[in-house]
Amino acid sequence: MEIKVDKKIQEANDVIAERNRAAFAAAGATVFNLISSPGAGKTTLLIVTLARLMGKTGCGVIEGDVETDRDAQRLAHLGLPVAQITTAGACHLDANMIATVLADFPLAQTKLLFIENVGNLVCPASYDLGERGKIVLLSVPEGDDKPAKYPLMFHEASVMLINKMDLIPYVDFDLLKAKKDARALNRNLRIIEISCKTKAGLPEWIQWLTERIDEFRK
Amino acid sequence: MEIKVDKKIQEANDVIAERNRAAFAAAGATVFNLISSPGAGKTTLLIVTLARLMGKTGCGVIEGDVETDRDAQRLAHLGLPVAQITTAGACHLDANMIATVLADFPLAQTKLLFIENVGNLVCPASYDLGERGKIVLLSVPEGDDKPAKYPLMFHEASVMLINKMDLIPYVDFDLLKAKKDARALNRNLRIIEISCKTKAGLPEWIQWLTERIDEFRK
Repeated sequence: MEIKVDKKIQEANDVIAERNRAAFAAAGATVFNLISSPGAGKTTLLIVTLARLMGKTGCGVIEGDVETDRDAQRLAHLGLPVAQITTAGACHLDANMIATVLADFPLAQTKLLFIENVGNLVCPASYDLGERGKIVLLSVPEGDDKPAKYPLMFHEASVMLINKMDLIPYVDFDLLKAKKDARALNRNLRIIEISCKTKAGLPEWIQWLTERIDEFRK
Repeated sequence: MEIKVDKKIQEANDVIAERNRAAFAAAGATVFNLISSPGAGKTTLLIVTLARLMGKTGCGVIEGDVETDRDAQRLAHLGLPVAQITTAGACHLDANMIATVLADFPLAQTKLLFIENVGNLVCPASYDLGERGKIVLLSVPEGDDKPAKYPLMFHEASVMLINKMDLIPYVDFDLLKAKKDARALNRNLRIIEISCKTKAGLPEWIQWLTERIDEFRK
């Protein structure tokens, strides 16, 4: 019974996701769905990334949270369009929430749009929002076993960013194991090691993003 | 429509949770539901806690994971009863999953039972499993804003353990802010700072647990 309901919800979601995807394509916007555990550093990643890109290309953010608009406030300081979705308890964004905020979003001026999902490695992996690709952010204090334990998320992602690399000396995190497990789930997965604190790895990440935007324009 | 379905699922859950609670009471078992983000250190906390308690009192674990039985394997080395629930994609445990494993669990010999929930700060907060109390484990690399951003979890918990205190020098984590935000949601919340690595704070935590077991026996 519960599975049938879930399947109906998923199918309805996928219809709206395709509509969102068409709207993004029509506007020429490259859209990424950013997913991680709570506290892996999604908002900080967006701040350092957008600070580097927003002079060169039109950027925007759709910000999803269970409660509070703290992350949207942090991003609004950058002076770019930020739409807030507060899910009021729901553990993931769905395509209809995105469709609702798109009605008022300046999509025509947006070449790069990030959707920051709710902090959760489970449910967001199952919901297509119409994005071009999913970015999974894994922070080293979470442990190297996360790809094996939350496989769908790593299977669905286009890129895995390993964040908080500055903490590697202080925690037990086997980089080779994390990468091997993630690639066993997804052999095309691009993996980039970063630290938003020391800024290590950010040029490689920005280059990857820029290439995706350029691809979309061709 | 979606809300009605959710309400029905919740009500069905609560009926089974009460049945579980009665079974725990009949067996004289004090039961805690352990919840955190992925990678906050739930399994490691259980290993260091049970190593200290299992000689003195009958202990057991019900282990919930989306996939894999790695955590159950880590715990099985301790030589105590461990039941594994693999949710196959579901983002939380529910009361019926617990009822199912209880059929074969040696509850009569178990005075302290931990249920390790799926790594998720959102959905597990909404599902009563029949436990005596919820333990929320917050690790310092996740950031001090988690109580404000995931309020239901901190509202529902009996105790908040602030874990990985050994990493405090390397991350931006305002202890006073995290505690203040959590207590604003839940003024009876007990807060204990711990490090499973250095073992700091573990005596206070073990004492709190022992008092809860003793209360239950009176």
